[in-house]
Amino acid sequence: MRTSAEYFSDLKKMKPNLYIGGKRLGRDDPRVKPGINVVSVTFDLAQNPEWDEVMTATSHLTGKKINRYTHPPQNPYDLMQKQKMIRLLAQRVGGCIQRCMGYDALIGLSIVTKEIDDKYGTDYYGRFLEYLKYYQERDLAATCAQTDVKGDRMKRPFEQPDPDAYVHVVERRDDGIVVRGAKHCITMAAYADELIVIPTRALREEDKDYAVAFAIPADWDRVYQITRPVWLRERKEVKSPFSSYGVSDSLIVFDNTFIPKERVFMCGEWEFGRRLALLFADSHRHSYTGCKPAVSDILCGATALAAEANNIEKVDHVRQKLSEFAGGGELAFAAGVASAIYGEKTSSGTFFPNAVYANVGRRLMGETIYHEFNILTEIAGGLAVTLPFEEEFSSKETKAYMDKYIMRNPKISPKDSHHIWRFVENMAASPMSAWYQIAGVHGGGSPIMETITLNAEYDYESKKNIAKYLAGINKELDQSKDLNEKPFSALPPERSQEK
Amino acid sequence: MRTSAEYFSDLKKMKPNLYIGGKRLGRDDPRVKPGINVVSVTFDLAQNPEWDEVMTATSHLTGKKINRYTHPPQNPYDLMQKQKMIRLLAQRVGGCIQRCMGYDALIGLSIVTKEIDDKYGTDYYGRFLEYLKYYQERDLAATCAQTDVKGDRMKRPFEQPDPDAYVHVVERRDDGIVVRGAKHCITMAAYADELIVIPTRALREEDKDYAVAFAIPADWDRVYQITRPVWLRERKEVKSPFSSYGVSDSLIVFDNTFIPKERVFMCGEWEFGRRLALLFADSHRHSYTGCKPAVSDILCGATALAAEANNIEKVDHVRQKLSEFAGGGELAFAAGVASAIYGEKTSSGTFFPNAVYANVGRRLMGETIYHEFNILTEIAGGLAVTLPFEEEFSSKETKAYMDKYIMRNPKISPKDSHHIWRFVENMAASPMSAWYQIAGVHGGGSPIMETITLNAEYDYESKKNIAKYLAGINKELDQSKDLNEKPFSALPPERSQEK
Amino acid sequence: MRTSAEYFSDLKKMKPNLYIGGKRLGRDDPRVKPGINVVSVTFDLAQNPEWDEVMTATSHLTGKKINRYTHPPQNPYDLMQKQKMIRLLAQRVGGCIQRCMGYDALIGLSIVTKEIDDKYGTDYYGRFLEYLKYYQERDLAATCAQTDVKGDRMKRPFEQPDPDAYVHVVERRDDGIVVRGAKHCITMAAYADELIVIPTRALREEDKDYAVAFAIPADWDRVYQITRPVWLRERKEVKSPFSSYGVSDSLIVFDNTFIPKERVFMCGEWEFGRRLALLFADSHRHSYTGCKPAVSDILCGATALAAEANNIEKVDHVRQKLSEFAGGGELAFAAGVASAIYGEKTSSGTFFPNAVYANVGRRLMGETIYHEFNILTEIAGGLAVTLPFEEEFSSKETKAYMDKYIMRNPKISPKDSHHIWRFVENMAASPMSAWYQIAGVHGGGSPIMETITLNAEYDYESKKNIAKYLAGINKELDQSKDLNEKPFSALPPERSQEK
Amino acid sequence: MRTSAEYFSDLKKMKPNLYIGGKRLGRDDPRVKPGINVVSVTFDLAQNPEWDEVMTATSHLTGKKINRYTHPPQNPYDLMQKQKMIRLLAQRVGGCIQRCMGYDALIGLSIVTKEIDDKYGTDYYGRFLEYLKYYQERDLAATCAQTDVKGDRMKRPFEQPDPDAYVHVVERRDDGIVVRGAKHCITMAAYADELIVIPTRALREEDKDYAVAFAIPADWDRVYQITRPVWLRERKEVKSPFSSYGVSDSLIVFDNTFIPKERVFMCGEWEFGRRLALLFADSHRHSYTGCKPAVSDILCGATALAAEANNIEKVDHVRQKLSEFAGGGELAFAAGVASAIYGEKTSSGTFFPNAVYANVGRRLMGETIYHEFNILTEIAGGLAVTLPFEEEFSSKETKAYMDKYIMRNPKISPKDSHHIWRFVENMAASPMSAWYQIAGVHGGGSPIMETITLNAEYDYESKKNIAKYLAGINKELDQSKDLNEKPFSALPPERSQEK
Repeated sequence: MRTSAEYFSDLKKMKPNLYIGGKRLGRDDPRVKPGINVVSVTFDLAQNPEWDEVMTATSHLTGKKINRYTHPPQNPYDLMQKQKMIRLLAQRVGGCIQRCMGYDALIGLSIVTKEIDDKYGTDYYGRFLEYLKYYQERDLAATCAQTDVKGDRMKRPFEQPDPDAYVHVVERRDDGIVVRGAKHCITMAAYADELIVIPTRALREEDKDYAVAFAIPADWDRVYQITRPVWLRERKEVKSPFSSYGVSDSLIVFDNTFIPKERVFMCGEWEFGRRLALLFADSHRHSYTGCKPAVSDILCGATALAAEANNIEKVDHVRQKLSEFAGGGELAFAAGVASAIYGEKTSSGTFFPNAVYANVGRRLMGETIYHEFNILTEIAGGLAVTLPFEEEFSSKETKAYMDKYIMRNPKISPKDSHHIWRFVENMAASPMSAWYQIAGVHGGGSPIMETITLNAEYDYESKKNIAKYLAGINKELDQSKDLNEKPFSALPPERSQEK
Repeated sequence: MRTSAEYFSDLKKMKPNLYIGGKRLGRDDPRVKPGINVVSVTFDLAQNPEWDEVMTATSHLTGKKINRYTHPPQNPYDLMQKQKMIRLLAQRVGGCIQRCMGYDALIGLSIVTKEIDDKYGTDYYGRFLEYLKYYQERDLAATCAQTDVKGDRMKRPFEQPDPDAYVHVVERRDDGIVVRGAKHCITMAAYADELIVIPTRALREEDKDYAVAFAIPADWDRVYQITRPVWLRERKEVKSPFSSYGVSDSLIVFDNTFIPKERVFMCGEWEFGRRLALLFADSHRHSYTGCKPAVSDILCGATALAAEANNIEKVDHVRQKLSEFAGGGELAFAAGVASAIYGEKTSSGTFFPNAVYANVGRRLMGETIYHEFNILTEIAGGLAVTLPFEEEFSSKETKAYMDKYIMRNPKISPKDSHHIWRFVENMAASPMSAWYQIAGVHGGGSPIMETITLNAEYDYESKKNIAKYLAGINKELDQSKDLNEKPFSALPPERSQEK
Repeated sequence: MRTSAEYFSDLKKMKPNLYIGGKRLGRDDPRVKPGINVVSVTFDLAQNPEWDEVMTATSHLTGKKINRYTHPPQNPYDLMQKQKMIRLLAQRVGGCIQRCMGYDALIGLSIVTKEIDDKYGTDYYGRFLEYLKYYQERDLAATCAQTDVKGDRMKRPFEQPDPDAYVHVVERRDDGIVVRGAKHCITMAAYADELIVIPTRALREEDKDYAVAFAIPADWDRVYQITRPVWLRERKEVKSPFSSYGVSDSLIVFDNTFIPKERVFMCGEWEFGRRLALLFADSHRHSYTGCKPAVSDILCGATALAAEANNIEKVDHVRQKLSEFAGGGELAFAAGVASAIYGEKTSSGTFFPNAVYANVGRRLMGETIYHEFNILTEIAGGLAVTLPFEEEFSSKETKAYMDKYIMRNPKISPKDSHHIWRFVENMAASPMSAWYQIAGVHGGGSPIMETITLNAEYDYESKKNIAKYLAGINKELDQSKDLNEKPFSALPPERSQEK
Repeated sequence: MRTSAEYFSDLKKMKPNLYIGGKRLGRDDPRVKPGINVVSVTFDLAQNPEWDEVMTATSHLTGKKINRYTHPPQNPYDLMQKQKMIRLLAQRVGGCIQRCMGYDALIGLSIVTKEIDDKYGTDYYGRFLEYLKYYQERDLAATCAQTDVKGDRMKRPFEQPDPDAYVHVVERRDDGIVVRGAKHCITMAAYADELIVIPTRALREEDKDYAVAFAIPADWDRVYQITRPVWLRERKEVKSPFSSYGVSDSLIVFDNTFIPKERVFMCGEWEFGRRLALLFADSHRHSYTGCKPAVSDILCGATALAAEANNIEKVDHVRQKLSEFAGGGELAFAAGVASAIYGEKTSSGTFFPNAVYANVGRRLMGETIYHEFNILTEIAGGLAVTLPFEEEFSSKETKAYMDKYIMRNPKISPKDSHHIWRFVENMAASPMSAWYQIAGVHGGGSPIMETITLNAEYDYESKKNIAKYLAGINKELDQSKDLNEKPFSALPPERSQEK
């Protein structure tokens, strides 16, 4: 498994293809460093024996110990460990751990390549397994480039005035394909080792050039990343882990980019466009049942700390509001657990989370993220956005005033008070606040997408049958057998005798 | 296992101690029959081999096959089977299956009697196991009488102007105890075989006479049930299962009632009052993660059926609203699954659901029940409450008009339309509607109680520690080990190799 | 102005054309009496000098003092008095006063008949004024029959498989017209003097036979009312005003019914179908800004009383919840005030409320009604639906128990406690509860209808222009002149010097 | 009336007492310029004859035409004009116009000084009128410094460990007083002409030194402003009005500051502390019924523009969400209208808005502000926070890609698209977003404060009386006379004949 130092070193070797503020840059620009700091925690904690089995897994291909971020889940236990790993890491970096997208893309590819091969006798699955071995051995960190720029939202890909509104194949060669188009809002692309590119939506036969999936290094030839970093105001003396973290999103342009054959995992099989898009999305929504509870944990902690600093922690309405974080985050976490327990084994062996539970869990968090910030704001008060700059706390003319007037709870020193309110500012009133709000709604699919998925997946007819029976229209009620056949064991076979 | 016919026959033998409409009555009064119809389904389905293992279990005491309603869960699988059993039954009777209260009281007693014995060397646990064997062999259906009338809500039991505001011991004899007081809002008491009486709240030393738990037949000497039945307008021709179901709640008066020693399971151990009250409540909240999803299923089905009858099933906002039932019910169900997976083995061997998950699941449903009725009303329209009486659909003068003007969707006959709207009326605008709304809020503890439980159980300090670490106050973050140690296996040991 | 005694006497003279429970009946059936009791309060209070100017007005046609329910508003003050009258009456009868529908239909006709005449040179307005004089002199109480049974909701009137799904003209004669079809969910029709029939929706030219409006006595030849009454369980000893009130809704069948020419106010002018439908709806939504605040007042009062009886009135979360009633009801009331102040004078002289404010006010209440019941339930507890029957409070065997165990607040006697909880039961768990919930959503148009109206009426372009200006796309911002031109005076000219 | 040029010139003459980023600065620092730009619009529009009578008024003291921001309302019409002025200006600057705080403080002082004099025979009112004339003549722009730093929130002023936690009198001299303490979160203080200082809460006799109100120039001796400015990233080519606006908040330190007698308006009259605090707060909440609707207008416009750019403006759920802005903003506006119409004339002649309506309106907006941002985010998508920097749209290497991939709606040019998304970024994902969210909750009092005010002001007893009447406990119902006595005329006497 790589160390974070090796990860940095690999990044530095990459060709400069990032564009920020009018310049072409490499991975050493300080504005992308905060994002790199986030991803490196996924390497650091995997080295920590305390989190063995959470952060690591045993490869079903090679039997070696690998970073869990490279391991397609094989049973419900793996899904639950994945969920816990994500919550663990997200708590530690103050939110999005960023490496899940690539992981979920791997999971999607592991399933769909097998299914395409089963139908068409192609050899995508073999290619994919080779790629996966390579990926596991090098402990790579990919992102998933799914979201096309999409052009006119009321038109399908083949109907677009500009055919490049969705990434598509423009040439097929013996040794590979050439693609054109752009993916946008791609988190972590600026410091990913690899980009895994998959379709963004259901496709029709006319869209078949848009049915394309592949994986390439993030600094590949004719790949350009127009990158938007988000970072926090640099701290001078009052340092904190959170202020060292940040994120970048890229518009990734493919301008007649050549993709070698062994890196192509779908090419023209349009009926599988929707399947792959949803495999990624539903797997990623399951990931959210790990990270969004952590976001609730952090907002809950920030709110409780602000309440303590304001000495109002015992007040009734404060207690009530704190309990809403518990409700939100843990319901989403529970949805992830049920999604694992009621998941299913696919033909590739990858164990896939139940879509209904993944979607209701993710949707809940997408619907409540702004409300959670609202609670923090309610309890913290206006200071979150009016806190004087750090310099005022140290400059000769104002330090005494700041130390005097920041005091609220006699048990908390001016210095710790400053730490608390600076952190509250970072959470509630910084560029990262907006990023968490907006990613909280849209990352992994906005609530409207989950509603659409739910409406496709949920068995409304069985509910109508219950009503028809109770109403006296149908004489019999044939109730869901699912209730009897599941759940799957929550532990892998080799551990299942333990408890 | 008893059949429902045997259950009826046992009820008929009971002494008449019900008071309804100014009369003393037995269990043969037609107004309590709808409730009896509900409970009898728990006997009928246990006879159906199709639902074996859901409806039945193997006694850990005798090794015999028993109705699951008499089986304290021994592992997470049992908890998940319990949850599924309740959802199955609740779908079939259109809501509350009523028999869970007694079951959850048994579960609570199984744990607390062992814990009291462990502390005080008493012999409650032995008594309880005897009682449990008796209960399993006869396949009894108890209710739990927990809620005291409570008098002044701002005073503790021992402070009440009327000491009988909470049930308490008034005399201790060698062969048993004498109790006085009343329990109210006790569902199913009117047609239960047994009453299991437990404390309703945390107690102090001064309250020790109020720390009392026991079980007696529901027609026991000096026990009076002032009963309020709820039933639906009788159908003449347009019959339906739902209209045959109902419920009764009793005010149960104990007026110097003698309880024999072998039926006393707590007497004076006031520190365990809170423990038993919460064991029952949390177990019952876990039960709600089975029944409330079924209530969502039924309301979802009724709404979808009304939408179909109105021919608006494909309309966007209707689809959106239907998906809210999926979200609500399945999140609560997921909470139950997580509650099982993250549960714990108690000293008695009973496996107990995780309190945080049980509470967030139950609270969600208590907060959304009125909203769910709102959705049904929105989609069904005003007809739910303005539907002419059944006779208008058959009387010579009006039948032709009713048949003509009830038509909306050409694919649905007037007769089926009438079935549908009569059912919608029963769901949305009948005495049962109010019962489901109010029980939906308060049954098993209202949202405010779950918030209080959550605030007691939830680890806010660990969240503050995350914030202190991210803010730079603490240098280390000691994250929850729970993440690593759990989950328990979701299958019992003997089945855990299967999948 | 009529007295309620005269109103009763007039009802008794009517032909029996109500169908309830399989029988043809007159207005003396006890099941319709509770609704008559409601309407009679509109006559009683008009006799009370204390409420002069609220309950009464001066006819702009005759200069005589008339019941305000017969007076089309002439200025903002009239609209505000109308709103206050409705709140006053609704507080007194515990909710819907029922007489507004006919009033709002009169208002709509007063405007549209003039507008049709202005366009086509017809003489509807003259006919209408004659009818209005007749109506004012006799102090009639009409209902408005707007809602057609509508058949397939996805089809327009002329597309329906059964042309009678909407009321329409089947024959045009010199002396009048013949109509067929049915209106349903028509509140108060069973004890109205007159029925005012208007179209239910926007119409196209093909629908022109459906563009018909008229007024006739409620027992007119070939008019059949299939009536569904809602009433409360009769009280034996514990009497209360609320329990004497109720409501009936009718399916009104027009089976080749002849309407004399002087009673026809629209016939074929299909472009005015939408206009009249909306005039009625928007006027009625303004009426809701009077009655729905009263419903909030009543639910607030019931909740506060239950809180007092439970002795929890000072508890923080109870206070918070009580304040939600204040918020809801008063915001809706405020919307009515703004709707008056920003209203407009129509060509007929009738002053019409602003549609945007009427719709946002009504929508708010439609969205929150179930939530308001939820609050009552939260505070009142389960007793609302488990309260033993009245007989148990007086029968020898149980009276002592009931008196003892109903006590919660030492300052409230058992008798008053019984009154309180019986009232809470009537509010939260009776046939009227469902009626208020469902009428609260749908009466006057459900939230989805108000959203549709808002989306038609609200000036989104002006909002986009603000954004385009701020974004730098447009150089100028042309802000709404409405801001400068309004409001109208809130007092009529003759009183405007007073304050 | 001053021009904005004169306002700038006056600011430049002020002594440098701002502390930002470790330096002492004057009003010419570029970081405070965006706030100055906002306030200057209040001078510019008053010069525009188009907005006469909205932006201006006639002084009741001098008969001269004055900026409305210096005119205490004399009748309901003035209150409605004030509300419209604020909405007008807030639309134009994209949100908070900042000058209202000082205006509302003037209004509060105009009332309380008279009331103190009436009770104690003091001469505050005379002083105040002198000050008001001075203020009107110079067309000053004050802010209100109300919020103390407050120290321990569970303690009253006199109980605080540090007595300076609230501003208080430390010395009384013949020619004035000396004060110490600090006010924080004071918007606009950095570029106000004057600071009006008032108490923040109810006081007891022991707190009498804290009962102090005065007005002084913002650069007064021994007054230090530790200022936190908020501004938007500077635009290079893609200019817009919105990006030139911003805001500053100050911690204002009074360190033994001398206040001359003629500028002191309360000193020791502790019973009036609560009164003045509430007069300011309720007047300011009424102001919010003007500005918060404008914030809804702007967010609505931004959302509608984003929807148009995404070509999804006609989609059902988008329409539904847009209508929520209409609902929210207009309900708050309506509350302001009702607050004016149901306001009251105080002894000073100032006409004061009704507190209940001002509070329900403000609370609604405080509760929904985060939700409104949520809607914008839902419709706009992730681009709001991932939009590449401005330079990428002009740099040679990336311009073509940006122009190509920003296109969504063929009717909108790349340049206008860039304008739109840059504006959406400014609204949803900039430092100003957080400021609007947090000020939206807390400015003028957070929802919890409005609930407290409502619970103090709202007549729950009258609601209970309605319930007692309907329940049969009270025989009579004495309904609110308010219904009959109000409203006041909505036009001033001299205009009331017009309409």
